[in-house]
Amino acid sequence: MSPGRALARRLFRALAEHTADPPGVTRVAYGLGEQVAHDLVAEAAQAFGAEKRIDAAGNQFLVLAGEDRSRVILVGSHLDSVLHGGDYDGVAGVLMGLALQADLAAQGRMPPCDLAVTCLRAEESCWFPDSYIGSKTALGLLDPDVLDGVRRSDDGTSLAQHMERLGFDPDGVRRGKRHYEPEEIVAFIEPHIEQAPALVEAGMPVGLVTGIRGSVRYRQIAVTGAYAHSGATPRALRHDAGLAGARLITEMHALWDALEAEGRDLTVTFGEIATDPAQHGFSKVPGHLHLCLDMRSAEADTLERAEQKLRSCAAGIAEATGVTIDLGPRTDSSPTPLSPELRACFAAAAEAQGIGTLTMPSGAGHDAATFAKAGVPTAMLFIRNRNGSHNPDEAMDDADFDAALAVLETALDDPSLTARRGAEAA
Amino acid sequence: MSPGRALARRLFRALAEHTADPPGVTRVAYGLGEQVAHDLVAEAAQAFGAEKRIDAAGNQFLVLAGEDRSRVILVGSHLDSVLHGGDYDGVAGVLMGLALQADLAAQGRMPPCDLAVTCLRAEESCWFPDSYIGSKTALGLLDPDVLDGVRRSDDGTSLAQHMERLGFDPDGVRRGKRHYEPEEIVAFIEPHIEQAPALVEAGMPVGLVTGIRGSVRYRQIAVTGAYAHSGATPRALRHDAGLAGARLITEMHALWDALEAEGRDLTVTFGEIATDPAQHGFSKVPGHLHLCLDMRSAEADTLERAEQKLRSCAAGIAEATGVTIDLGPRTDSSPTPLSPELRACFAAAAEAQGIGTLTMPSGAGHDAATFAKAGVPTAMLFIRNRNGSHNPDEAMDDADFDAALAVLETALDDPSLTARRGAEAA
Repeated sequence: MSPGRALARRLFRALAEHTADPPGVTRVAYGLGEQVAHDLVAEAAQAFGAEKRIDAAGNQFLVLAGEDRSRVILVGSHLDSVLHGGDYDGVAGVLMGLALQADLAAQGRMPPCDLAVTCLRAEESCWFPDSYIGSKTALGLLDPDVLDGVRRSDDGTSLAQHMERLGFDPDGVRRGKRHYEPEEIVAFIEPHIEQAPALVEAGMPVGLVTGIRGSVRYRQIAVTGAYAHSGATPRALRHDAGLAGARLITEMHALWDALEAEGRDLTVTFGEIATDPAQHGFSKVPGHLHLCLDMRSAEADTLERAEQKLRSCAAGIAEATGVTIDLGPRTDSSPTPLSPELRACFAAAAEAQGIGTLTMPSGAGHDAATFAKAGVPTAMLFIRNRNGSHNPDEAMDDADFDAALAVLETALDDPSLTARRGAEAA
Repeated sequence: MSPGRALARRLFRALAEHTADPPGVTRVAYGLGEQVAHDLVAEAAQAFGAEKRIDAAGNQFLVLAGEDRSRVILVGSHLDSVLHGGDYDGVAGVLMGLALQADLAAQGRMPPCDLAVTCLRAEESCWFPDSYIGSKTALGLLDPDVLDGVRRSDDGTSLAQHMERLGFDPDGVRRGKRHYEPEEIVAFIEPHIEQAPALVEAGMPVGLVTGIRGSVRYRQIAVTGAYAHSGATPRALRHDAGLAGARLITEMHALWDALEAEGRDLTVTFGEIATDPAQHGFSKVPGHLHLCLDMRSAEADTLERAEQKLRSCAAGIAEATGVTIDLGPRTDSSPTPLSPELRACFAAAAEAQGIGTLTMPSGAGHDAATFAKAGVPTAMLFIRNRNGSHNPDEAMDDADFDAALAVLETALDDPSLTARRGAEAA
């Protein structure tokens, strides 16, 4: 086993032990667990000669010097976790960068340009309800209002206070200070466990990610009818909020079915469905139903069609069942394509190594989206994983980590990877 | 206005005032409010010469002597209420009997046989979770286990303890003691506000009830799938409990639609619909859904067909969506037809008075079902009412009460009403 692979295995264990919070691990963004993880990884990198750099927001870059020191390849992900999360989400990306460096260092080889293991902060928005804080600060792109306006959901302290407490520089963040200019970054590569079972089902160890799905979300859909006696109220006189909601769910799933048959990319999820516990009852027609809807697609026009259909379905069902459907506040994010050149380079590397891959979109959001939107050539490699993510049962096999690492190692030898300038699309 | 009508208006007000518990009224079964109501009504009846009789369970009969003292017509309903209920549920039936007696007494007329205003106990099963305690004890039919086994949902005291506390005779109840033999009862007539808006919609003041719908209930349907990432999990790999539940709801409503088109009587209500608040989230495919289902029909074979369809739908949906659907515990009650002879007698009376009626089933359960099942000729008259029942907004117009009373008065003069013996079908 290569020294890099051995180091990765040791650090997966060490991180699980040092940030254990049974069941699973907890590494709150800008909290103790996240800092412990940053320190453990930095210590290991410094042991083989990488330099540690911390930006204004506390994002950490562990830099192995390359032949061309004016450019850098970033490999990494985030080190924070959800409450009682698993051992691999985020960590796998950072440790893959570290393994790559360790093997180069052990072989006495220098990468073609600087290679920086990138440890981003605060990706899990469950603590600070804002997306991609780490990657936005790394690129000097965080909206300054977030620093004071976004407060930790449990104790109310602001993001700026948290940064200050750990010795970072929120005023620098406010001014858009960054450690690397986008033009210097040849590539941002984020390896990550897959958060769904597509690779498991396909029997492939590695996923080549085409892009990050955008979303349209309605978190507070309110269906309002009228409570009525279940046994005594005729059909024509009902305003059944439950029936109306059930129709909305089945019709939007029929839409998904139809768009998928057209070859369109879409997911439709009603994650919360609830009559009102204070008022519902087994012998009452339900007068209210809460729903939330999350639709995602790699294609902006598919999201648009889905949303048009949602509005027409809601209007039709409201009319037919005598209820009102208030879709409530809407949030969205646009689909983000990743670099086809980098993906082609990884595909060639995998083929050369005889490693099976699945080309697929990422349904979940990742820091990679921020880099890609800033014009940095960006790629993601998915690693096969069982049991989803954000739970203590995440299960990645070492062999699959090794396979993704082999793809990365091989790609690094491909001159086309580093031929281009950074931020070409910016 | 007749003295009976004036008395009823006075007592509607007095009961609302003396048992007020804003918003609305509260008359707990075997509690203070219920006893206050029994006493107010008894006092009024005794004032015009009715005799007060209390049975072992505390049901009260206020008896106006008739020409034939070996037989009795019972007119009444229950005097308990739900928490924060309205002014008319139960009360309207008792006060209509009282108004009938008061007018006869004022005219110095004697009914053809004894006429007893019947004040039943404990009809609202929200306190003691058992059905029709008052009518069952009145007929000596209460399962003795209920006396000790059924405990008040709030303080845990048994039904027997409650009866004893108020000076009644739970041991008599245990032995099936009753004040009237079914054979003595010429008719049990229960006037009651309608609990749905069918009379309001039809523009009719009075409903002639064909029977009491039976029910099949599943209060704990558990749909179990698997939680998964909303954006990352492809359709084929989902086990979406919410989608499965939504399909069950829409398919059972399609069945209702189809059976109604065949002229069948049915109601289908999913009153509680809930993903698990401890586990659901806007970005998760829901792994669990709770449903409860209440189906009612006046026709036993319709209930049977609906239930067969429920089982086949559940199996088909479980198969198609990769979830399990556990229907859980089942309870039922059989449909109870009421006396067609009494209904014909009321229909003729209404026609003679020029009062519009709607012939309809009762979707809600009533004490009348117990009498009918015991073979007592039984009838119900519905009185138009807005805003449903079991809430402070029940709204019955005095004019509609008067219309139903006029039907009853006229029918009492019809010799066919008292021609028959009681409990002919027993």
